[in-house]
Amino acid sequence: MTRQTIEQARKLAVSVLCNSNVSQTNAEAVASALVAAEADGLASHGLARLIAYADQAASGKVDGEAKPRIRDQAAAALAVDAGHGFAFPAIRYGLEQAVARARSAGSCVVGISHSHHAGVLGHHVEAVAEQGLVALGFSNSPAAMAPWGGREGVFGTNPIAFASPRTSGPPLVIDLSLSHVARGKVMLAKQRGEAIPEGWALDAEGRSTTDPDAALVGTMVPLGGAKGAALALMVEILSASLTGSNHGFEASSFFDPKGAPPGIGQSFVLIDPQRLAGPDFLARLDVLLEAIEGQPDTRLPGQRRYRLRAKAASDGIDINDSLFADIRKRVANSPAH
Amino acid sequence: MTRQTIEQARKLAVSVLCNSNVSQTNAEAVASALVAAEADGLASHGLARLIAYADQAASGKVDGEAKPRIRDQAAAALAVDAGHGFAFPAIRYGLEQAVARARSAGSCVVGISHSHHAGVLGHHVEAVAEQGLVALGFSNSPAAMAPWGGREGVFGTNPIAFASPRTSGPPLVIDLSLSHVARGKVMLAKQRGEAIPEGWALDAEGRSTTDPDAALVGTMVPLGGAKGAALALMVEILSASLTGSNHGFEASSFFDPKGAPPGIGQSFVLIDPQRLAGPDFLARLDVLLEAIEGQPDTRLPGQRRYRLRAKAASDGIDINDSLFADIRKRVANSPAH
Repeated sequence: MTRQTIEQARKLAVSVLCNSNVSQTNAEAVASALVAAEADGLASHGLARLIAYADQAASGKVDGEAKPRIRDQAAAALAVDAGHGFAFPAIRYGLEQAVARARSAGSCVVGISHSHHAGVLGHHVEAVAEQGLVALGFSNSPAAMAPWGGREGVFGTNPIAFASPRTSGPPLVIDLSLSHVARGKVMLAKQRGEAIPEGWALDAEGRSTTDPDAALVGTMVPLGGAKGAALALMVEILSASLTGSNHGFEASSFFDPKGAPPGIGQSFVLIDPQRLAGPDFLARLDVLLEAIEGQPDTRLPGQRRYRLRAKAASDGIDINDSLFADIRKRVANSPAH
Repeated sequence: MTRQTIEQARKLAVSVLCNSNVSQTNAEAVASALVAAEADGLASHGLARLIAYADQAASGKVDGEAKPRIRDQAAAALAVDAGHGFAFPAIRYGLEQAVARARSAGSCVVGISHSHHAGVLGHHVEAVAEQGLVALGFSNSPAAMAPWGGREGVFGTNPIAFASPRTSGPPLVIDLSLSHVARGKVMLAKQRGEAIPEGWALDAEGRSTTDPDAALVGTMVPLGGAKGAALALMVEILSASLTGSNHGFEASSFFDPKGAPPGIGQSFVLIDPQRLAGPDFLARLDVLLEAIEGQPDTRLPGQRRYRLRAKAASDGIDINDSLFADIRKRVANSPAH
C-alpha cells in the first residue's frame, strides 16, 4: 500500500485523466469524485475505476471534453445533456443550477441524459442538502437484474439516494442500490474459489445459484424480492425513460473502453423544506432521529462514511501498490514530462 | 356474502359516513376510495375500514367536516393542511391543484399535513398519471417497524407509490409498503392459531419470532433488512418531518375511535415528462416495458388490480354478511329515515 494525502491522490488522478483527452475541468470533477469515494471507504467506486475511465476517454467511448448543456428548462425542471461525457461534471452543473430554482419555486427536478456512472450517488444529494434542501437521486446502470420472474437482465442495480439537512452536523444521507448484495461480492467469492449464499444471485436460467461463475452470467437478486424488482423498475423509469436515456439492457459497460457509450441517465428531485413544513422541519427531524438514536444497537445511515472521511482527511488514503504503479506510469507518460 | 354494484356500495358507504358527522363532499371522497380499494381486490384498505372510519368521525377523533386548506404555496410546491379530517379529500384537492403547477413549472411537490390513512396510495398517483404526468407518493403510518438493530417501532410500514402514463391503456402503477409482509398476515396467522415464518416479524426484544402474539407486540421486519429500514426512514422524513406531521411513533391508531387524531402526513412529487425527455418519453417507456413483458413468467406491477377492477365493474363486489348487516344498521339509523 502507498499512502497519499487526499490532495496528492486528487492531483495524480487529474494528471492521469488529462493525459487521456480529458479537459482540466472535467478531470478535476472526476478526480474529486473518485478520491471522495475512496475517502468514504467505498473503494469499488474509487480510484480502482481511474484507469478504466482514462482508457474510455482515450478511446473516445467517453467524451473527456464534453460540456454539459441545458436541453430544456422551466421554473422547476432542468434537462441536462451530459453529451456522453463523464457524469460528474454534468450532475454538478445540473444540481448547481437547480438549487436556485428549488429555492424560488419550492422544488425542482433535474434529468441528466447521455450520461455515465454517477459514482457515489449519495455524494450528489449530500451536496444539495449542505445548501439547506432535501434531495432525492436516482440512477440506472448496465443490466444486472431481471424483472421479477424473468431470466434476462433489464435493470441495473439502480441506486436510490436521499439527503436532508440537519440542525447541526453534516446532512443525513441514505444511499443504497436495489440488489440484495453488490455484484462485487460475487466477484470476490469467485476470486477466492468460494460458493455464494443462496439468495444473492440467479443463473442464466433464472434459478437460484450458489456458483459465482453461474451468477456472473446470470443476474443479481433484487432487494426483498418482487418489491425490490418493482422499485428497480421505478428507478429505471425515473432515471432512463424520463430523461430519454438508455435503459440498463441497452447500455454498454462502465469499464470496457470499447463500443458505444453507455448513455444511461440520472434524475434528482430538490425540495425546499421551508415550503412544506415551514420553520418546523429541522426540529421535527431532530425528534425523529432522536427516537432512532435513543434505542440501543441502532445507528443512522451514512455514519460510517463520515467517520472514514474524517480519518482520510487527517491520515490520507492507502492505494494498493499495483494500482499506484499504474497511476505513476500514466503520469510519467504525460506529454508535459 | 352479499353482492353489490360499485354504485350501490358507494351509496351505502356515503350514507354510513353522513350519519356520523361527515360532510357530503367528504363522505363521497372517502366512500369512493374505500369502494375502489375493494374493487381492486385490496380488501384490507376497503369497506372493512368503513365502520371504524365512521366511529372516528362520530367521536370527533377525525373531523368529518374538515376542509383542506392551502397553508403555503409556490410555483412548484403546495402545503395542504388536512385539518385532521380524512386524507382522501385533502389529497385529491392537493393533487388537483398541483397538476396545473407541474404542467407550467415542470414539476410540483405537495405535502399533506394533519392527515389520516391514505388508503391505496397507488390510486392517488394513478389519478395524476391519467393526466399525463409521472408521480411519486409517500405516506407514513402508525409505528410498526423498528430502526435497524432496534426494538421499538418508530416508522409505519410506509408505502411508496409511483405511476406513469403509457402510450395506451391505463397508467403503470407501482405501490408497495416497506415491510417484508403486511401486518394483516400476522393477524390472520393468529386467528388460525398458526406459527408465522422466520423473517416476518420481531418480538418486543427485537428478536426474530415465529409466534404471531409475540409479533403483534413487536415489530414487522423491513423489506430486505437494513436497506428497507433505511428506505422507511426516508419515507418517514418525506411524508412526516417534511410536512410538519406526526411521525409513526407519535401517531395514534387508524382504527380506534379514541384519543388524539393520528396527524400523519403524505407527500407527492409530480413531474411533467415532456420537460425532461421531450416527446420521446412514452416511446422510451414502451421499449422498457416490452423488454420485461417479452420474457416468459414476468408481469408488470399492478396488472392484477386492473383485472379485478374490470371484473368488479361488471360483476359487482362481495361484502361479507356481518359487515353488510352492520352497514345496513347504520344506514337505517339515519336521522333522515
